[in-house]
Amino acid sequence: MTVYRWLMALSARNQLKGRITEITLGDIMAHVVVKIGKHTIESVITRRSAEYMKLKKGDTVEVIIKSTEVILKK
Amino acid sequence: MTVYRWLMALSARNQLKGRITEITLGDIMAHVVVKIGKHTIESVITRRSAEYMKLKKGDTVEVIIKSTEVILKK
Amino acid sequence: MTVYRWLMALSARNQLKGRITEITLGDIMAHVVVKIGKHTIESVITRRSAEYMKLKKGDTVEVIIKSTEVILKK
Amino acid sequence: MTVYRWLMALSARNQLKGRITEITLGDIMAHVVVKIGKHTIESVITRRSAEYMKLKKGDTVEVIIKSTEVILKK
Amino acid sequence: MTVYRWLMALSARNQLKGRITEITLGDIMAHVVVKIGKHTIESVITRRSAEYMKLKKGDTVEVIIKSTEVILKK
Amino acid sequence: MTVYRWLMALSARNQLKGRITEITLGDIMAHVVVKIGKHTIESVITRRSAEYMKLKKGDTVEVIIKSTEVILKK
Repeated sequence: MTVYRWLMALSARNQLKGRITEITLGDIMAHVVVKIGKHTIESVITRRSAEYMKLKKGDTVEVIIKSTEVILKK
Repeated sequence: MTVYRWLMALSARNQLKGRITEITLGDIMAHVVVKIGKHTIESVITRRSAEYMKLKKGDTVEVIIKSTEVILKK
Repeated sequence: MTVYRWLMALSARNQLKGRITEITLGDIMAHVVVKIGKHTIESVITRRSAEYMKLKKGDTVEVIIKSTEVILKK
Repeated sequence: MTVYRWLMALSARNQLKGRITEITLGDIMAHVVVKIGKHTIESVITRRSAEYMKLKKGDTVEVIIKSTEVILKK
Repeated sequence: MTVYRWLMALSARNQLKGRITEITLGDIMAHVVVKIGKHTIESVITRRSAEYMKLKKGDTVEVIIKSTEVILKK
Repeated sequence: MTVYRWLMALSARNQLKGRITEITLGDIMAHVVVKIGKHTIESVITRRSAEYMKLKKGDTVEVIIKSTEVILKK
């Protein structure tokens, strides 16, 4: 038996795996909280995407962030 | 003696503390790699900001990401 | 008595001080209008941030915009 | 003689008129500084756009910013 | 009779003309679906912009996307 | 023989397949032009991503755009 693994590459340099701990659906947008190790990342996506992806508490997801969107504070 | 701590709040919901492990200056932009626990976040900022902030390897910084910029993959 | 001022630097190159003239809370997002001198800047943030920051009409705030997000028209 | 003025509407809620005070071309990107009244807004666009638009110091331009890109600090 | 055409240039390199096939207004945001040839682009803007622009199904619009916002997948 | 297809879902609602017609590497960033049917989409990503993904002229790629990044013009 051969397992075919499809390797997908994304140009977005930040991809972190975590687990959804909370999801709130609004009329147009949805607020999703993802626990990544001991960190938390919050994401706002469209309600349609949340429904299309059937996102729910406990799901394993990856957060993806383009490096041009990351601000630094010192 | 009193220590005044100024509490600043940012609307960007993602603020993670880490340490710069690598910084590359280009003509207009700069690429900064930040180690956050066992995760890595990469940021692209202007060269001017990197110079103005005197960013260098080893600096403690916070990465700041607006939740509307975070994509989810499942 | 000594006043400790903590100097924070952000890589986002646009930081303008203004006053909130209007704030509308939605289910997930909030729409905030900020008067900056004779200009007006509108911001959409999460409702959670608006509540966490206790934003209200009359508050002095800074708007922060990463330079990669600014489009030019001529 | 009739002057036809074409009214264009953009969904981006922030549109501020100013004057370019500085422009630096890099290999891929360009850094543009715009004076808007007594404020300054910096923009990073592609070098191609800067060339296509023939942007130069002294040009009157508008900066355009989508409200979802505006972070608030208090 | 002379027709005056005002040529406007935007630094955002992606500008595609299409037709609105669906628009949903939420409390703060609006979800707009635009058909561009045989492709579909979805946009989330503020409800205020949707109302100010009087956007409705069937309208011809352009979608505008800054190139720094475009992620590539391979 | 069984073909395992892994179905990946992304919250970004805009995903268009095309072909790279031009790629320019800068010191930090790379400018990529993608032909999508009769349309063209330009993307600016990090040089590192372009190298990591081994992007080259002729490659089939998908452009991915979060709907909150799409501005409308009427």
